[in-house]
Amino acid sequence: MNFPTWMSGIQQRTESALEAALPAPGLAPARLHEAMRYAVLGGGKRVRPLLCHAAGSIFGADSRVLDAAAIAVELIHAYSLVHDDLPCMDDDVLRRGKPTCHVQFDEATALLVGDALQTQAFQTLSNRLEGIAATRQLDMLHLLAVASGSRGMAGGQAIDLAAVGQQLAISELEFMHIHKTGALIRAAVLLGAHCGEAQPDALERLGRFANRIGLLFQVVDDILDAEASTATLGKTAGKDAAQNKPTYVNILGVSEAKNMASKLRQDAHEVLAPFGESAVRLHELADFIVERTF
Amino acid sequence: MNFPTWMSGIQQRTESALEAALPAPGLAPARLHEAMRYAVLGGGKRVRPLLCHAAGSIFGADSRVLDAAAIAVELIHAYSLVHDDLPCMDDDVLRRGKPTCHVQFDEATALLVGDALQTQAFQTLSNRLEGIAATRQLDMLHLLAVASGSRGMAGGQAIDLAAVGQQLAISELEFMHIHKTGALIRAAVLLGAHCGEAQPDALERLGRFANRIGLLFQVVDDILDAEASTATLGKTAGKDAAQNKPTYVNILGVSEAKNMASKLRQDAHEVLAPFGESAVRLHELADFIVERTF
Repeated sequence: MNFPTWMSGIQQRTESALEAALPAPGLAPARLHEAMRYAVLGGGKRVRPLLCHAAGSIFGADSRVLDAAAIAVELIHAYSLVHDDLPCMDDDVLRRGKPTCHVQFDEATALLVGDALQTQAFQTLSNRLEGIAATRQLDMLHLLAVASGSRGMAGGQAIDLAAVGQQLAISELEFMHIHKTGALIRAAVLLGAHCGEAQPDALERLGRFANRIGLLFQVVDDILDAEASTATLGKTAGKDAAQNKPTYVNILGVSEAKNMASKLRQDAHEVLAPFGESAVRLHELADFIVERTF
Repeated sequence: MNFPTWMSGIQQRTESALEAALPAPGLAPARLHEAMRYAVLGGGKRVRPLLCHAAGSIFGADSRVLDAAAIAVELIHAYSLVHDDLPCMDDDVLRRGKPTCHVQFDEATALLVGDALQTQAFQTLSNRLEGIAATRQLDMLHLLAVASGSRGMAGGQAIDLAAVGQQLAISELEFMHIHKTGALIRAAVLLGAHCGEAQPDALERLGRFANRIGLLFQVVDDILDAEASTATLGKTAGKDAAQNKPTYVNILGVSEAKNMASKLRQDAHEVLAPFGESAVRLHELADFIVERTF
């Protein structure tokens, strides 16, 4: 199967799994459930689910088990976007080509949507996973929580808030992104590997791969934000510059940021070498992330 | 040990356990961690931890295991208060006698504090609990998630939002509170029982007890909101009436609401009868909740 076919298959099964995990739109409280579905379904490249499935495929993990892990990570990601877009945060009106959740519904509803989507992630991942030891599943829940919380993604948001209007060194910018974007991307990769009962040495190696991919993803995002149009992105372009946020592009310049992306991709490929052919999907995903910009 | 001594002991150990579970105040991102601690520590009656320990004591559960379950529930409760107080929700400035989190810090920080406290709850409860089967611990995580999410507490908030300015029947008000307050109180009781490896029939009975206590708690809260002063409550008094929110007091009147509370207490006691003396702490807590008003 070629990469585009594989990718599209994972995206479709992720959509179905999210659709099934989210409460039905008619179920009370209907407006909240409608808004949760609005925020999650029918959009997004599903990069984290793709990484989760790709990592799991190295170890022959069961696809249905991978679906559960993949959508748990995606629900955390979706909650963070809804809260990020709120007026007290980035105050954004456009996301995935549609009005943001608080614009389409209202601010209070968007707040509850984010809250309930986070809970839904932990609810989904605490359903018994067939063929996975319960102790390992607890480890997976713990991993997702640590990656999402104040020492992971939410902490990264806090650092980001504090950085607006600041001059950051490249090391400080990296510290921010390792938390804000990197932690959840790392969780996606490691959860996928856990679904295949990966051993500690493989988990350690995949953790190193994920750290590079997390930074790569952010560098590429910064390049896209600087270069692409709002129509292409489906979200407001140029907003980092407008909000005076530090980015790789404004610290390094576009050309140097592209060099950094190439180097990170190469590093990521090298880390995967010992997995051989079994890691083909992760190789392809690293390329795919970079090729969004070049 | 008499009830006040027992209660104060549980409150103290809950405070210590929360203190230990929350990230240290100096740890980066320091402002977020400081705000998380501000929102959780040094206040609150810790009703949910008390219920959790009381339920666990029926089955001789280990106190340290109960601490983990108790603070997980309390962290969910604390997150909900921080988000409830935000300008787009209840827009409140006073909580537990102190400025609310978004007043003391800022709105974006308070949003992240709530988010990260929710995550912290699941992080805490996914640490391996000694002496509890991993499969049961997964059930406990699932129970907490269901109780907190769109079909539990967060759903109750959404119903509450929709009810502002509406005339509700008593059955609709009950439906709202079963979700908004009741679901988490029920989780506190059931998690405590799970810590003592309670069997399904005991869990079912405690679920019925908890449903009554949940409503009891809300009726008493409504009476307090109508009768007490802001200084006594440590939060803004009379705000339900000011916000034109339906309450038991404005549907039933104070006197009838007090009758309802007495009846719920009596029912709660009767449900506990088969547990005999082992349920003394739950009996005392039912009385304690009512006696806040009489």
